[in-house]
Amino acid sequence: MPEWAELDLIDHHCHGVVRRDLDEAAFQAMLTEAGGEMSTVGGSLLDSRIGYAVRRWCAPVLGLEPHTPALEYLVQRAALGFEEVNARFLAAAGLSGLCVDTGYVPEPILTPAELGALASAPAYEIVRLEQVAESLFGTVDADGFAGAFQSLLESRTREAVGVKSIAAYRTGLDLDPDRPSEAEVANAAAHWLARDQRLADPVLQRFLIWCAVDRGLPIQFHVGLGDSDVDMRSCDPLLLMGLLREIEPTGVPVMLLHNYPFHRHAGYLAQVFANVFVDVGLATHNLGDRATAVIEETLELTPFGKFLYSSDAFGLPEFYYLSARLFRRGLSAVIDAAVSEGSWNATDGERVARLIASENAIRAYRLDRDVHA
Amino acid sequence: MPEWAELDLIDHHCHGVVRRDLDEAAFQAMLTEAGGEMSTVGGSLLDSRIGYAVRRWCAPVLGLEPHTPALEYLVQRAALGFEEVNARFLAAAGLSGLCVDTGYVPEPILTPAELGALASAPAYEIVRLEQVAESLFGTVDADGFAGAFQSLLESRTREAVGVKSIAAYRTGLDLDPDRPSEAEVANAAAHWLARDQRLADPVLQRFLIWCAVDRGLPIQFHVGLGDSDVDMRSCDPLLLMGLLREIEPTGVPVMLLHNYPFHRHAGYLAQVFANVFVDVGLATHNLGDRATAVIEETLELTPFGKFLYSSDAFGLPEFYYLSARLFRRGLSAVIDAAVSEGSWNATDGERVARLIASENAIRAYRLDRDVHA
Amino acid sequence: MPEWAELDLIDHHCHGVVRRDLDEAAFQAMLTEAGGEMSTVGGSLLDSRIGYAVRRWCAPVLGLEPHTPALEYLVQRAALGFEEVNARFLAAAGLSGLCVDTGYVPEPILTPAELGALASAPAYEIVRLEQVAESLFGTVDADGFAGAFQSLLESRTREAVGVKSIAAYRTGLDLDPDRPSEAEVANAAAHWLARDQRLADPVLQRFLIWCAVDRGLPIQFHVGLGDSDVDMRSCDPLLLMGLLREIEPTGVPVMLLHNYPFHRHAGYLAQVFANVFVDVGLATHNLGDRATAVIEETLELTPFGKFLYSSDAFGLPEFYYLSARLFRRGLSAVIDAAVSEGSWNATDGERVARLIASENAIRAYRLDRDVHA
Repeated sequence: MPEWAELDLIDHHCHGVVRRDLDEAAFQAMLTEAGGEMSTVGGSLLDSRIGYAVRRWCAPVLGLEPHTPALEYLVQRAALGFEEVNARFLAAAGLSGLCVDTGYVPEPILTPAELGALASAPAYEIVRLEQVAESLFGTVDADGFAGAFQSLLESRTREAVGVKSIAAYRTGLDLDPDRPSEAEVANAAAHWLARDQRLADPVLQRFLIWCAVDRGLPIQFHVGLGDSDVDMRSCDPLLLMGLLREIEPTGVPVMLLHNYPFHRHAGYLAQVFANVFVDVGLATHNLGDRATAVIEETLELTPFGKFLYSSDAFGLPEFYYLSARLFRRGLSAVIDAAVSEGSWNATDGERVARLIASENAIRAYRLDRDVHA
Repeated sequence: MPEWAELDLIDHHCHGVVRRDLDEAAFQAMLTEAGGEMSTVGGSLLDSRIGYAVRRWCAPVLGLEPHTPALEYLVQRAALGFEEVNARFLAAAGLSGLCVDTGYVPEPILTPAELGALASAPAYEIVRLEQVAESLFGTVDADGFAGAFQSLLESRTREAVGVKSIAAYRTGLDLDPDRPSEAEVANAAAHWLARDQRLADPVLQRFLIWCAVDRGLPIQFHVGLGDSDVDMRSCDPLLLMGLLREIEPTGVPVMLLHNYPFHRHAGYLAQVFANVFVDVGLATHNLGDRATAVIEETLELTPFGKFLYSSDAFGLPEFYYLSARLFRRGLSAVIDAAVSEGSWNATDGERVARLIASENAIRAYRLDRDVHA
Repeated sequence: MPEWAELDLIDHHCHGVVRRDLDEAAFQAMLTEAGGEMSTVGGSLLDSRIGYAVRRWCAPVLGLEPHTPALEYLVQRAALGFEEVNARFLAAAGLSGLCVDTGYVPEPILTPAELGALASAPAYEIVRLEQVAESLFGTVDADGFAGAFQSLLESRTREAVGVKSIAAYRTGLDLDPDRPSEAEVANAAAHWLARDQRLADPVLQRFLIWCAVDRGLPIQFHVGLGDSDVDMRSCDPLLLMGLLREIEPTGVPVMLLHNYPFHRHAGYLAQVFANVFVDVGLATHNLGDRATAVIEETLELTPFGKFLYSSDAFGLPEFYYLSARLFRRGLSAVIDAAVSEGSWNATDGERVARLIASENAIRAYRLDRDVHA
């Protein structure tokens, strides 16, 4: 296996993992993007590429043979206990940095500091824009919202390395590209504040994004793959073209997350916009051994300085390790194929590996400056 | 060749084949989804993956060498006569069951019973919703349509194993997910009954689908690949997400047919919705030796308990055999690749083969109950 | 390497190359579809598949080792001078004909005759519809536009082999299929003539296209891949289905250019419409060694008599050679795979190579008639 397969990775988009033991139902519920209802007519979700990949790659980390049957795997997992399981997978991931989205906490999960300690790597924070805005619900009036949000975003991101938008989940990505006026924001805020805390208004989504642009930190966008709540048609990254055209002159990096099944669309955007980066997080572990194909397709147009690694791990610590394992394996296969057929030379291959494993993330998030980790 | 390459298949979506001999023009017209006008500026449709696949795989079934030139193939086909040709290809397909859509009969074709006899396998019926509705044209008034349809659907499906919607061809898949009200149905029926027999009304399409949900049988949807009459943009399965969200709690299986070139979209839906199944019928033989790639891509997200085999054979009996041949070959290649690289073990591979070849269809259509075949 | 890898190609869609030496910034600006702003946060565009492909394949044409570092390559390029560089790449391309789009001349570039002389092959002209229309700006009134355009198109295409529409860049491809009325055209022309020279009106785009249909020459459409000015969502070739349905009965060939990332959609259209042809120009060199995958995917449904070679070279003469090199390499790999696994026989492989390399272009553009070259 070539040297680049062992390179440390920066996981530029991930989440906390749970602080509890999981029975089979709970484990399966966290395994994929499937909704709460357990399939019976469709069989078990463990019979899937991701299920087989967990058995193949994660079982040895728990001291089991590769391909150990799922139920035995879950027995061993329970016997070790969640703290040991979390520790093993985070340590095995081989990370040199983590950028943790702290905006999704449906149950108690590990903090960035705890994740970083287990991974023996600096953990940086990504602040979710909607979470910041929603924390103001009930504390501001419509006219005060804009200023209060900008002020809170400033303080919340003082030690963060980036922000994240989940407009894809709230309004879809087909957003008017223009910065909304003060009056539009106040009017939209009035409507929002008269309803419930969940923010899902296109004017406010645009306002949040433009405040983030002003803040100057890289902006992550959820794109593509998600659960059944999302309208996947409105998660095509091509819908962002208008907004990307407006943001490009500011130089603020835009990180398109996940992207599958629109990953070739994302690669196009990464080529034509100077500030657009892409990854295939979440897809990497969901696709198991087919992650290789998606990495290869995304790297058709994506310049090698614009592709990042992320796991999008949430809940199961397995995903920290499994994604890293599958990504290294896939990236190595892509590089090996190009080098062995003579399309690239070995120096090219090493350069691509280094850029994608960590150098792109360091450059885009400026992780080499004096940043709190 | 591994054992799973010889597994019997259940063809869960197919049609009758013609009862006549075919000259070159007639054969070519049935070969692909191209319209009636024969291409001259574009050369012959026999020069295509499907054309070469017919010569490669079907020629030996007629006693010819693989790759026999097309005109010799057609001469031999004519010499044997359509009855012998039908018999040979249905027998060679290696089926253990057929679910025959009886709603498309542009000319005399074999019945499910005749197909089953030739295939030496039970043949079940799939009832086309639009055909049932259109059979009421001229016999009911607007207020009586809803009840008459429900009643006729009940009797028509008493011995059927599923129903089919061709909303994709009539209105596209971007349907309002809600069950229409009685008044809406009566109003839409009035408009329809005042025009011609062809039903292409979004309210009535939704009504048909919801009646099928009430009936509790699996519902097949035409998705993706079709002829030039379809608006392919409105055949993206992602357009069904709203409807799938509403149907999921009922547990009624939804079968997304064909799907190409949106097969990865379909795989996503099969993962996130408990009751969604997918296939790549029609694409399998149209793509010839590239069927393998499409099977592999579809199985990225599709859980192995949710993928089905179908030929979508219509007209030419070759398609019964050719699809089965190419599907076995493609599925085996996908499984072999995963097993030989160590991503799955051999037991995993055998399990995937069994599920997809027949167990999923038996479970979803409940073919093991006492059903008329 | 099989014989078909050395076949001469007809490049059915290309442009002129520049008449000046290029520094690194100018070279990089012409390398991809990225906009004017040079990426710094994203690294160099030379670190990309196309950048590595230039170093791999083009360096030897300039007397350098394969994989020569980019800066050394540019030094050698400057030392040779643009005239020598142009001459070497055009000669190395191995073309037996060129169809040159003369409608895009942002700076002085080589003429078709000059390109043909360097390539030692006949060079034919493709007339850009928008350029013809815009040349009338300021010389006609609204009522006179329609007649003046038809008359000018007639004279401008007297020695041309085809025309081209860039509706994708101006209005998107979601065009009403019908031929506009005289009154509609005059009204739209009035609005256009009251603004500036750039024509971007859906009624006028339709008028131009229908005039081209009347003229009877093949019509090229920009589809898919382009720069960041294009709304890529409106470049999906499926949007053309309505128009294609109307044009099909006329028999006028429609050439869908580029198509990536919608190349499978284009393949579907090439199957179902008798007069539709496709290529993967521009993508071929942008994807470097991955061009093979896109050729293979496009040839899933595209009949072999409907696929064409083009470079879409503009500006850099490298693209004439690089595209031809990558296309031969990719097409050979696709054919070899099918032949070596026994799906096609060797005769099939040779036939596919001949059709795609030149015979399809000769047939569709009628290049074997007495045409000015």
